Parts: sequence; C-alpha cells; structure tokens
Amino acid sequence: MNDFIKSIKERDPAAKSTLSIVLTYPGVKAVFLHQIANFFHVAGFDLIARIISQTSRFFTGIEIHPGAKIGKNLFIDHGMGVVIGETSEIGNDVTIYHAVTLGGISPSIDSESQRHEKRHPTIGNNVVIGSGAQIIGPVKVGDGSRIASNAVVVKDVEENTTMVGVPAKAVKSRNKGNFTPYGVDQQVKDE
Amino acid sequence: MNDFIKSIKERDPAAKSTLSIVLTYPGVKAVFLHQIANFFHVAGFDLIARIISQTSRFFTGIEIHPGAKIGKNLFIDHGMGVVIGETSEIGNDVTIYHAVTLGGISPSIDSESQRHEKRHPTIGNNVVIGSGAQIIGPVKVGDGSRIASNAVVVKDVEENTTMVGVPAKAVKSRNKGNFTPYGVDQQVKDE
Amino acid sequence: MNDFIKSIKERDPAAKSTLSIVLTYPGVKAVFLHQIANFFHVAGFDLIARIISQTSRFFTGIEIHPGAKIGKNLFIDHGMGVVIGETSEIGNDVTIYHAVTLGGISPSIDSESQRHEKRHPTIGNNVVIGSGAQIIGPVKVGDGSRIASNAVVVKDVEENTTMVGVPAKAVKSRNKGNFTPYGVDQQVKDE
Repeated sequence: MNDFIKSIKERDPAAKSTLSIVLTYPGVKAVFLHQIANFFHVAGFDLIARIISQTSRFFTGIEIHPGAKIGKNLFIDHGMGVVIGETSEIGNDVTIYHAVTLGGISPSIDSESQRHEKRHPTIGNNVVIGSGAQIIGPVKVGDGSRIASNAVVVKDVEENTTMVGVPAKAVKSRNKGNFTPYGVDQQVKDE
Repeated sequence: MNDFIKSIKERDPAAKSTLSIVLTYPGVKAVFLHQIANFFHVAGFDLIARIISQTSRFFTGIEIHPGAKIGKNLFIDHGMGVVIGETSEIGNDVTIYHAVTLGGISPSIDSESQRHEKRHPTIGNNVVIGSGAQIIGPVKVGDGSRIASNAVVVKDVEENTTMVGVPAKAVKSRNKGNFTPYGVDQQVKDE
Repeated sequence: MNDFIKSIKERDPAAKSTLSIVLTYPGVKAVFLHQIANFFHVAGFDLIARIISQTSRFFTGIEIHPGAKIGKNLFIDHGMGVVIGETSEIGNDVTIYHAVTLGGISPSIDSESQRHEKRHPTIGNNVVIGSGAQIIGPVKVGDGSRIASNAVVVKDVEENTTMVGVPAKAVKSRNKGNFTPYGVDQQVKDE
C-alpha cells in the first residue's frame, strides 16, 4: 500500500499528502473496490460482483467490470467516465486519466458467441493513457507506451511507442522526459 | 419490457441475467426516468421535469433533457457522460455508448430566437453511436448507420453508413458483421 | 449573481427560469462550491479544500482543483467529466461544455520539481470550449477564441480563433454568428 501511495505522489504533482490521497482520490477507491468485486466474480457470484462494481461507479465515476484483470499500482487520475471492460488486462504501474475506455467491439448480431471470447484490450507495464483516449477491441499495448489524449486505438501498439490521433498513429519512440497526454510537439522538441 | 431486456442481452455480451440488467444497468434506469420526466415536460411542468432529469443524471451519469423524443428499445451502455439535448429525436433500437453528445449549436448572441427551434440531432432506427462521439446541430443520421468512437458529426449522415474521425467522414456501407465503435479496419477487412 | 443568471439565459436556449438555473444546473453549483474550496486553499487548508472539491465532483460530476483561478460568469454547461487542473486560470464570461479538460503534462520521472510550476492552461475572456475538448499544458487561449468539440489543443491559441481537430488547427477568425461546438462548416458557410 505504501508503495502504491508513493507511486501516486511520483505521478501527480498535485498530490499533497498521503491522507489526501487515501481520502480524496476516486481512482484509489475504485481500484480497492474492484479487488472486492473481482473476488466475488472469480467465486462465481456475478450479481454481487456487479452490484459492488456499480456502487463504485456511483461513488467514483469509474466503471471497472468485475472480471477485468489489473496489475500492481494502477493509478486512475481524476477518473470520471473511465470504462474498463470485462476481458481487459492491465499490467503493473499503469496510469489512466479520466474518460478513457478499454472497450469491446459492438456486436450487431451474434452477442451470444462472444460471451466467452477475449473482447477487450491488454495493456502492458508502465503505460500512460491520456484523457479521453479510446482503446477498442482485443488489441495489445506494449510496455512503456503512451496513448495521447482523445486518441482512438484499434490496432496493436508496440513497446515504448506514443500513439496520437483519430485513428491513432505512432509518433516516435518514447523519450525519458515528460509527456503531454497529447504531447507530440513536446516529444519531438525534447529529442 | 421483456423485448427490451432481450434486446440488451443481444447487444451486450457481458449481460449475464435479467435481474442484473434491471438492477445494475444505469442506461435502463435513465431511459425509465426519462419517460417520467418527459410526461411532466409535455404536461407543462418544466421545473419538475428538469428536477427528475437532474436526479437521474446524479444516479446514472446520463443527462437526457425532458423534451427529448426517444423511440423503443434505446440502450445506453455504460452511459457516464452522455448528454441528449432538448430537441433531439431518437428512433427505435438505437445503441448509444458512454460519453456521447447529441448536442446543440452554441449561441453567441441570440439565444432567445433559438428557444423554439430544432437545435439537436435526429437519429434513425438501428443506429449505433460509439463512446465519445459528438453529434452536433440539427443533423439527421440515417437508419442503420454507425458513428465511430470519438467521431464528430456536424452534417447529415446517409443510411447504413459508418462515420469515422474528426470531423467524421463516411467509410463505406455497413456490412452485416461486427462493429468496432471505431472500427474502420475491421469493416474493411470483413468485406 | 443576477448578472450571472442573466448571462446563462443568454448562452443556453434550454434555460427556462431563474429558479430552474439555481436549482438544477450542476455547473452553477460547481462554481459556487469552488469559491469556498478556493478560500480554504488560499488559507492553506489543503485537505479541507480538496474534500470540498471532491464533494462537489460527487454531486456535479465536475472536478475543479481548489487552486484554479476562475473569473466572472464562468458557465459550465452539462459539465459531467469536466476536469480543471490546479494551476489553470480562466478569464471572464467563459463557457465550458461537458467532458472538457484543462489538464497538465503527465510527469514520467520528476513530479517533485513540477509541484510549484505552472502546468495547466490559461483561458482568456469570452472563450467557448466545446464538449470533449482537451487543452493540455501551460498554453494560452486568447480572448474570444473557440475550441471545437473533441479538439486537442497543445499550443497557444491566438485571439478570436476557432481551433478544430486532433491535434487542433486554426480554421479562421471568428464570425459574429452562432457556433457549433465543432462547427467548421457553419463557420465557413456564414462568411
């Protein structure tokens, strides 16, 4: 837990104190409640799991399906409007801003056949996903990659790559400096 | 009602049971409360109608103006951040994902003259609108069309057309297969 | 206060009465609560300020950091999902639609050094920001400019300029007519 709080301080310049993070960060509550929802989901209590998930959505504005698999130190900043689908998988030390979707393909006819398929993204370690970005379908986003604000990703993304635009295109390899959730120009300027 | 629940199961692979849909789907609650708000709106009780609408927004994250005209079997999936404006009209069997706007033109001077004009979109039957899409102004979206995730639509859309991008452009006629809310590549690949 | 209510009626054709605006407009509540949060923030009570800000987010769906500096007559319409960062500055008579971000650069390593820097946008007077627009980094948006729906702004914007797209580009000088939050075509057509 201490590691998690420390990692948030490193990622949010506005984070003032541990007490403030525990009490007032919706993303911290949402990840905690997801662990409980996921416990009931794995145990087969689908309805209880979903009620916990929707209660969390009501209090935090963040909707994580109880079936989603989430790694260590996921930080959802601001978080309002985030939707993480049932078969999503998220690695360690990932940062997700508000209004991000890890979404599925919209079925037009045959929803039943997709009920047990992988329909949502797999996110690697140390990925940053900017506000409003939409990642749709069973695509993979490689370790260390960054998805810009309002970008729409519908294909696999390689490691350490910044994706920008609608539809999203790779800009260039990540540098070690700061990152604007949109941030092409900064990226290019720094290198 | 049964038809409506059945139609949701067909459209959402994550929907497990009727009880789960009735209890835990914010979009189902929002459409139900809209029917009550619209009743008071039509009867001329604007303030009561608006209080019901805003109460629904508080509990569901979905804001539907009491004046909006909505057809049968509207399914708003996830729904957080959806805004549906006063003079919007929605056909039957429409699916809307979270963060979608059916919005008006922003007045700079003369708000008064627009108070009784049609300012918001008209959506046909069987339309699917992906997460984050913005449909702005008194435009028409034809039956069976699909608006991709984060697309911005400011012109009329023909029937059975997929619109993608900012601003949105037609990709090609809809096929009968599945649809990624963004989904150009899948569309093209399938045909 | 009267001026503020009057300015909202001018900007929202759906606004029916003063009572309706005071009781049912989330943006009015959020700006009022921000004034209290900002009072505690300036007085050095960071945690109280943040609890007020997060309480406001829970009731309104609008997240304004207590440190943000806001001018007169800010109207946040619909408002769900709006995020306004700590070092943001907003001029007078600004209109912001739902799902707008005035955001910071995402730090990858050195969050500590940025804790006292200007990290968020400065918005001029009479600016209109369309739904879903993301304005990221310490950029300036000049007086009278308009940011289209879902646009992503990462550079300074001159006065009386309409910005459109991902990333956003200037379209042409603002005319005096109406404005679609996306609105390129309308702009061009009118002139």
